[in-house]
Amino acid sequence: MRRIIFALVAVAVLAGTAEYIVRASGQADGEAAPIYGIKIPEGYRDWRLISVNHLAGGSVKQLRAQLGNDIAIKAFRDGTRPFPDGAIIAALHWNEASSDENNKVLATGFPGAGLDSFVPSSAVNVQFMVKDSEKYTSTGGWGYADFTNGKPGNEALHNTCYPCHQPAKERDYVFTRYAPAH
Amino acid sequence: MRRIIFALVAVAVLAGTAEYIVRASGQADGEAAPIYGIKIPEGYRDWRLISVNHLAGGSVKQLRAQLGNDIAIKAFRDGTRPFPDGAIIAALHWNEASSDENNKVLATGFPGAGLDSFVPSSAVNVQFMVKDSEKYTSTGGWGYADFTNGKPGNEALHNTCYPCHQPAKERDYVFTRYAPAH
Repeated sequence: MRRIIFALVAVAVLAGTAEYIVRASGQADGEAAPIYGIKIPEGYRDWRLISVNHLAGGSVKQLRAQLGNDIAIKAFRDGTRPFPDGAIIAALHWNEASSDENNKVLATGFPGAGLDSFVPSSAVNVQFMVKDSEKYTSTGGWGYADFTNGKPGNEALHNTCYPCHQPAKERDYVFTRYAPAH
Repeated sequence: MRRIIFALVAVAVLAGTAEYIVRASGQADGEAAPIYGIKIPEGYRDWRLISVNHLAGGSVKQLRAQLGNDIAIKAFRDGTRPFPDGAIIAALHWNEASSDENNKVLATGFPGAGLDSFVPSSAVNVQFMVKDSEKYTSTGGWGYADFTNGKPGNEALHNTCYPCHQPAKERDYVFTRYAPAH
């Protein structure tokens, strides 16, 4: 188990250095990920924003955004739990880097404030949670998928998804919370 | 000028402690911001994601997302510059906080990696750039607006927008770049 977990971190770090590939729209059906058999949902990049967050620690510095399809967004906004069948959540992960161009601007606008702006430098991976209470009965109603440069991760990786999401069981296994309104 | 800039930082910090107000959909036309006369565009929260970033430095720790309406997103994706009239970019800012619940999960899944997850804790402000090359000829074709809890900032604040965006003149005054594809 520890080797798998270490590999996960290694994959996350290495994926950040993988070659940048432009994903044309429509190429979204590709290869299905193992265990749950999920393919990259078409048009996921156009879905609405659930929230954003960033991850720090050791060599992992990531910016993250979660997007939801219409069913997912509606459930986040009206509090419907469990999420209805058909809800899909996409988690987009990027490596981050300090932005010199932004920092110059911030230093001029806010002199002495020491502001540092971090922006996405390269894509890491994109993950999906797909709700289908019949198909995925044995894993709390959710199927999981992880893709790097359009290619699904391996079986060992996909065996870790459901166990990792167990602590969020009372929140229908979903970690992300809808971002506060402005 | 320095007093205005200091006030900007102070506003940004104080806004994070302002009372949290739920914004019902449809309440988007409210009071117009000064100088450019822009009201909060209806449905902006449903627009597509341009990018995410985070800001650190001193007492300012923010998570940020930029959303774009259809005209803006299309221009970001096909490289059309200057942005066409009608393009609107929304910049959503949140204070961030370390997430204990996420960190517990990460410590279990990635033991020893020291991962720290930062999520939005409260809304700070939302800003808009509205392209109208006729109406805003004197400010590079863009109008600017800044709202906190649905209320526009004052005139002094709005006088700082265009000067601050000058360094991005060669990029049609827009700082944010479209996030890398996965």
